[in-house]
Amino acid sequence: MDEILLMLPGPTSVSQRVLEAMSQPIVNHRSALFGELFTKTSSLMSKIFKTEHQSYIITGSGTAAMEAGIVNTLKPNEKVLNVVGGKFGERFMNIAKSHSINTKELEVEWGKAVDPKNIKEALDEDEDIKAITVVHNETSTGVCAPIKEIGKVMKNYDALYIVDTVSSLGGDYVDVDNYGIDVCVTGSQKCLAAPPGMAAITLSDDAWEKSNDVTPNNYYLDMKEYRKSGNKNPPETPYTPSISLTYALYEALKVIEEEGLDNRIKRHHKASKASVEAVEALGLELFADKEVSSATVTAVKLPEGVTDKEFRGTTRDKYKVELAGGQDHLKGNVFRIGHMGNVTYKELAITFSAIGMTLKGLGIDVDPGAGVRSITESYI
Amino acid sequence: MDEILLMLPGPTSVSQRVLEAMSQPIVNHRSALFGELFTKTSSLMSKIFKTEHQSYIITGSGTAAMEAGIVNTLKPNEKVLNVVGGKFGERFMNIAKSHSINTKELEVEWGKAVDPKNIKEALDEDEDIKAITVVHNETSTGVCAPIKEIGKVMKNYDALYIVDTVSSLGGDYVDVDNYGIDVCVTGSQKCLAAPPGMAAITLSDDAWEKSNDVTPNNYYLDMKEYRKSGNKNPPETPYTPSISLTYALYEALKVIEEEGLDNRIKRHHKASKASVEAVEALGLELFADKEVSSATVTAVKLPEGVTDKEFRGTTRDKYKVELAGGQDHLKGNVFRIGHMGNVTYKELAITFSAIGMTLKGLGIDVDPGAGVRSITESYI
Repeated sequence: MDEILLMLPGPTSVSQRVLEAMSQPIVNHRSALFGELFTKTSSLMSKIFKTEHQSYIITGSGTAAMEAGIVNTLKPNEKVLNVVGGKFGERFMNIAKSHSINTKELEVEWGKAVDPKNIKEALDEDEDIKAITVVHNETSTGVCAPIKEIGKVMKNYDALYIVDTVSSLGGDYVDVDNYGIDVCVTGSQKCLAAPPGMAAITLSDDAWEKSNDVTPNNYYLDMKEYRKSGNKNPPETPYTPSISLTYALYEALKVIEEEGLDNRIKRHHKASKASVEAVEALGLELFADKEVSSATVTAVKLPEGVTDKEFRGTTRDKYKVELAGGQDHLKGNVFRIGHMGNVTYKELAITFSAIGMTLKGLGIDVDPGAGVRSITESYI
Repeated sequence: MDEILLMLPGPTSVSQRVLEAMSQPIVNHRSALFGELFTKTSSLMSKIFKTEHQSYIITGSGTAAMEAGIVNTLKPNEKVLNVVGGKFGERFMNIAKSHSINTKELEVEWGKAVDPKNIKEALDEDEDIKAITVVHNETSTGVCAPIKEIGKVMKNYDALYIVDTVSSLGGDYVDVDNYGIDVCVTGSQKCLAAPPGMAAITLSDDAWEKSNDVTPNNYYLDMKEYRKSGNKNPPETPYTPSISLTYALYEALKVIEEEGLDNRIKRHHKASKASVEAVEALGLELFADKEVSSATVTAVKLPEGVTDKEFRGTTRDKYKVELAGGQDHLKGNVFRIGHMGNVTYKELAITFSAIGMTLKGLGIDVDPGAGVRSITESYI
C-alpha cells in the first residue's frame, strides 16, 4: 500500500489503464494489425505535436530521438548553434560533436532562459549556421525556453530549428507547425505518462529536404528508413519496434485526447504555479528564475544545513516520496519536483507534506504544514 | 479465444507470467531499486551468453545492439570482413558502411553455411582485417553458422570476432567465452521470449581494449558510457531505460534459468528436427541445407502453384497461425516457421495442421495430416 510516489521529472507514474494496455499479446510487427496501431499512434502523436506532418516512433530513449534529429539533418563539419543552459542542452551539443558536427555554444546561465535576441545575434554574426538546437524544457534546471518567440526569429533564417520537447510535450504549449519547428523530438515517459523506452520525432518539409542531402553516419536512427517503412502498406518500422510499449504509448495518448490537450496543459501549469507557491510558503528558494519556471518540473535550492542525501533519503525512505536531485554541478545543491503526467493536487499534497516534515525533522526552522496549506489554497 | 498463434522468427509469444511482470509500477531508473533489477538482469544475461564479462542492456531493437558492436570496436576506414549469407549478414555490413568502415564481403550462398576455412583464407590474404562479423542464426534463410568452429579459427588471429546471436541465444548453443567471441549481441523478442524492444551486448577484454582506442561517431550506443553508468553505485544506464521491458526481460530470463538453458536448447533442437521432418512428410522442400538448418527457424520453399499471399493469408486468416514470408529476393518463394521461445509440440501440431489444410485447400496434392502426424511421431 505504501508504494513510493514518483515525483521525478521522468519517468512518471503510469496508470493502471496504460499498464494493462501494455500487456496485450504480442502481434507480428509486419502485419495489418500492427500497421493499424502504428497509424493510430503516430496520428495521435502528430496531433499532440500540433503538426500536419507524420510522426515516427523510435524504440529507444529520448536521447535516441535527439540523436536522430541531429544526424539526419546535419553533415559532419556543418555548423550548428547549440543553446546550452543545462544538462540536456549540453547533450544536444555533445551528440553533434560525436558526429563531427561543428558546434557553436550559446551559453545561458543555468536557471535562466535564453533570450531570443541572442539567437538572432548569433545567426546574424555567422551565416554558416545550418541549424540551432533548443531544449524547450530544461529538466536539469526547471527552466522553460521561449520556443514560440525563438520560432519568430527563426522564420527569418534558413537554419533549421531543432527542438527537444522531451519533458514538455503534453504538459506545456508546443505547436510545431505554428512555431516553425523543423525537427521536434519527445519521449514517452514524461508528460505523456507512458512507460519509458519510446521516443518520437517529426520533421518539417525543410528538414526532410535537408535530410535528402545527408547520409547519416548512423544506421538505427536513419529517418529515411523510417519514412520508407512507414509508407509501406501496411505501415511498419524498419527494425522490430517494441510492440508492448507501442500499445502503452497509444493508450497514454488516448488518455490525453480524452482529457483534452489544452486542459492537460492547464493542469500542468496549475501544478507548477501551486508548487512554486508552496516552495515559497516553506521559505525555500527556487533555482530557476520564477518567470521562466517550467510547467512540468520545479527546481528548488536545498536549504543550508541539509545534505541532499539526508533530505531526499528521508522523503523517500520515511515518507515514500521520490524526488530528483541536482545534476552535474547542481548535485547536492538542488532538488527537483517533477509534476508531470497524471499529477493533481493529491500528489502535490503528499509531496509538500513530505517535504515539510522532512525539513522540520532535519532541524530546519520551518512550519512543516506551510507548503501543503499553500497547495490547498491553490486548488480550492 | 481464437487468437492468432505467432510462429514467427520473432517476435515470439510472451507468456502471461512475463506480461504480468512487465506491468509492475515504474520506479526511478536512478535508484537502488532499479540498480538491483539492472544487476540481476545483466547477471542472468551473462549466464546465458556464457561469459564472465558484464552484459549491458540497451533499450532498442537487436539492430541497435549490432550497431553498438560495430561502432565501439571499429574506426572509420578500418577494415571489417562481413560474412554475408542473408539479410542480417548484409545488415552488419550495411551498418559498418554507414560508419565509413571499410567492408569486405565474404559472400555465402543464401541457404548455405559459411565454411570456416574461407574465413581463414580471407584473414590470411588480408592482414588489415580488424574484425569479422558473423550472424549465428540467419533468420532470413534458416541457416545456422558454425560459430564454435569459426571461433577456433579466430583464436589464431588478432581480428575481433563479432557475432549476432539475436535469433539464437536461448535456443541454440552459444558459449561466448569458450568460442572466443569478442562482441556478442542479442535481442529480447526471439528465443528469450520477452517482448521486443530490448537488446543486449557483451564485450571481451580485447574488445574493450580496442574500444578505448575508438571514439564512436555515435552517442546513444557509446558502450563506454554504458560501462561508466553500470559501474556506479547503484548501477544505472546512461539514458532512461525501459523499466517495464527490463522487468519483462528479467522475468523471461528467470524462466530460462528455471527450465535450464541446456534443456531449453534441446527443446529448440527437437522442435527444429520435428519441423524439418514434418516439412518433408508434407512433400515440401527445405530452403536451407538440411545439415545446417537452424534450431530456431525453418525456412521452406513455397510449392509451385501457390502464392505467398494466398498461402500465408490462409494460414493466418482461416487457421489463425501467423507464419513469416521470405525476405528480399526470397519474397514470394519461401515461408518461414519460427519455433522459438516457448514452443512445444502443441504449437507445432497446430502449425502443421494449418499448413496441411491450407495446401490441400489451395489445390495442392498433399495429405493434409501428413505434417502433423509426423509431429506426433517426433514427440511421442
